[in-house]
Amino acid sequence: MTTTHSTHDVGIVGAGLAGLAAARALTADGFDVVVLEARDRVGGRTAEHTLSSGEPIDLGAQWIGTNHDRVLDLVEAFDLELWSQYDDGTDQVAVAGEIFEHDERYRALPAESEATLREAFERIETLRKSVPLESPQDAPTAGAWDGTTLETWKRETITTDAACEAFDAFVRAEFTVEPSQISLLSFLSAVDASGGLEAVTDGDGRTEAYRLVGGIHQLSRRLAEDLGDAIRLGEPVRRIDRTGDTVSLVTAEANYTVSDAIVAMSPPLAGRIEYDLPLSGRREALTQRMPMGSVIKCFAVYEEPFWRSDGCSGSVLATDGILSEVADATLPETGRGALVGFVAGADALEWTDRPVAERRDRVLDDLARYFGPRAGDPIEYVDKAWSTTPWSAGGYNASMAPGTMTTCGDALCGPVDRLYWAGAETATEWSGFMEGAVRSGRRVATEIRERHSS
Amino acid sequence: MTTTHSTHDVGIVGAGLAGLAAARALTADGFDVVVLEARDRVGGRTAEHTLSSGEPIDLGAQWIGTNHDRVLDLVEAFDLELWSQYDDGTDQVAVAGEIFEHDERYRALPAESEATLREAFERIETLRKSVPLESPQDAPTAGAWDGTTLETWKRETITTDAACEAFDAFVRAEFTVEPSQISLLSFLSAVDASGGLEAVTDGDGRTEAYRLVGGIHQLSRRLAEDLGDAIRLGEPVRRIDRTGDTVSLVTAEANYTVSDAIVAMSPPLAGRIEYDLPLSGRREALTQRMPMGSVIKCFAVYEEPFWRSDGCSGSVLATDGILSEVADATLPETGRGALVGFVAGADALEWTDRPVAERRDRVLDDLARYFGPRAGDPIEYVDKAWSTTPWSAGGYNASMAPGTMTTCGDALCGPVDRLYWAGAETATEWSGFMEGAVRSGRRVATEIRERHSS
Repeated sequence: MTTTHSTHDVGIVGAGLAGLAAARALTADGFDVVVLEARDRVGGRTAEHTLSSGEPIDLGAQWIGTNHDRVLDLVEAFDLELWSQYDDGTDQVAVAGEIFEHDERYRALPAESEATLREAFERIETLRKSVPLESPQDAPTAGAWDGTTLETWKRETITTDAACEAFDAFVRAEFTVEPSQISLLSFLSAVDASGGLEAVTDGDGRTEAYRLVGGIHQLSRRLAEDLGDAIRLGEPVRRIDRTGDTVSLVTAEANYTVSDAIVAMSPPLAGRIEYDLPLSGRREALTQRMPMGSVIKCFAVYEEPFWRSDGCSGSVLATDGILSEVADATLPETGRGALVGFVAGADALEWTDRPVAERRDRVLDDLARYFGPRAGDPIEYVDKAWSTTPWSAGGYNASMAPGTMTTCGDALCGPVDRLYWAGAETATEWSGFMEGAVRSGRRVATEIRERHSS
Repeated sequence: MTTTHSTHDVGIVGAGLAGLAAARALTADGFDVVVLEARDRVGGRTAEHTLSSGEPIDLGAQWIGTNHDRVLDLVEAFDLELWSQYDDGTDQVAVAGEIFEHDERYRALPAESEATLREAFERIETLRKSVPLESPQDAPTAGAWDGTTLETWKRETITTDAACEAFDAFVRAEFTVEPSQISLLSFLSAVDASGGLEAVTDGDGRTEAYRLVGGIHQLSRRLAEDLGDAIRLGEPVRRIDRTGDTVSLVTAEANYTVSDAIVAMSPPLAGRIEYDLPLSGRREALTQRMPMGSVIKCFAVYEEPFWRSDGCSGSVLATDGILSEVADATLPETGRGALVGFVAGADALEWTDRPVAERRDRVLDDLARYFGPRAGDPIEYVDKAWSTTPWSAGGYNASMAPGTMTTCGDALCGPVDRLYWAGAETATEWSGFMEGAVRSGRRVATEIRERHSS
């Protein structure tokens, strides 16, 4: 195999939203950019799928929040159409052997459980406001909070089984981890970066406000179209070298020589590249201590959203089956009904490793329990297990393990020589969201622009 | 660059003690073996260094335990000479602003602190005996123990600052992690696999009993000599493919086609290989949730072991500087004095990223505080920061983060199709020791032999 060589101003590793946003900003500034993508498609942790009937669905990221300004800018720039998330009717919370119902999910539990969960949420809001957004490790009691799992905090704070289970489902569905797998500090920081609990729990500034008619993947596709042949698909970068005044990005087929490089990937995947330049001990430790979450995203499609006429919103938070969360995902293009469910955390690992047919049956059992027998008999079922998806190795995001933020968290985004780190996890605002990915791409573009103009 | 092809019975990735032991066992059984090593040397996390005066020292693993039978077998087979660890005289424990002294390290603290530490150790011994060695995740309260950090357990259990600090130093020195970074379950399992606290704390069956005259690296070198040109240095395996009835190990220069493959590396480094065969979701999650520890190993060399005549054993356990532990490392070949110190856990990350000269000064300050001004003025100082050592990315070992063992710990050693996992971490007995590495290599050799004879 022959190796080709080419030279560019900036090389970007990863054509997810972060890498594409960085490429767009740098190209607009006149930089010659090359974007190297391991997959055969752009879009990273967004993933489009076409149903047998032709409608697109999002097997990866799908929701845009009301305050996701950079993403909403792109929606406007590309003349795309938003579709409001359906939320009329009754939410269900299936915990502690019962299914509780209420128009507002977190008010569904019986009084004592509702009270202890509300107090826990209020305490989280108080605590997270003392965590600095840009440097959570500088919070006043950062050491103690980083040495305590969220599980320990939950057991000390929440007094009923039903409320504990609802909290577990909330953590799994929102952050794709078990409460045992993150520290209180990293949880508070994640809530902080998500605009607070109000936003995450469907209140003000809610993060699950809109989908995109035609599918979220259009964002990446349109960004990529504008970049043309600057994007090279199917070219995983194996090694990054530093030679003299340049950086080399080495793939199986080619060497790209660039002035500056952006690694726009999740930290654990960025850690799998071989770096022939001195990274810090903290950076090395961080990429090993910030694993991807675990999630399977499941869709069931029906002739119509029949649960609406039953007064149901389609929203479920649960621990009684394998789905942690369910939401209405009715198809904007045709109005056909769809439910989207998330198997998350430990359940996701267990069910990723089981046969798809068995998983389908189990998910449909869950849906039938919440929405009646019609839900168990969809026209079509499709799911995607992100833990075994190559070049993702998990989803939605990477979270720091306990004892990580205070020991090496500061190595998350600081550039190393001419190497810049982007990706949803590196954003301080909306970390872990598409909005964070786009912001991180713009941030590194600014860092590179400033280095070149100084 | 042209790609060469060759065919073998078994391909082994990694020429540390695990890979070499597997190769030795399989070669003895008549298998044609190839061992692919990324570094330009064999020996993995053992590392030899020659002082300017010509004596060898071990910058990596160095101690052999009294019950490390497989390693002791190799010592005998290669006609190597053991050197007993010096432990006469007074140990020091430098915590809570004072330096306490006693012939037995863990009896040095004042009465109340000694009592609470001893009770904690007794409790650990009781608890760890309920953890099954081969499947810690099946312990009766595994879920709760895996959701609690060792830090939380320590704060609940140990009642004085001095005892807490001594415990911190013990955990850092023995396991190269902060108590915040591992769960109670993974700690109990590690103690269990080390033969219990007696062995780790220098009692019966002690793990730090012997060194090897001439350096521990001789074990790997002699194993490698017997294997001859089956070992290929400087060839990192980038990808492992499964095609038909064979497995391909792909390096930058060559494709090796084999019937069975052994990955004999730490789990996080094994996770950096690209696998073109279906690994489980659990396996993918595990390699992301089992980071390497953090350690800098430091040597100071003197004309003679002057501390001995002062009545000191050379042994220190400390939190008052940056060294967590110090031990006598007097050179068997010449009798010149040497002290070995370990900067471990969070301190190791911080000091890995500082200039070596600054680190040297700081370590020598610590040694002078424990052993007087002569200790601050060595003939030679050398250290090795393992977190930034390529193809190690940390040391001594990988430990599971909280919430890992109960969710994906079962993916640690089970073979996947024709892929076998070896390495010190995969041993059930003496996990994390050289003895565990050798045992793991023999275990996979047996697994492969059995597959071929069935």
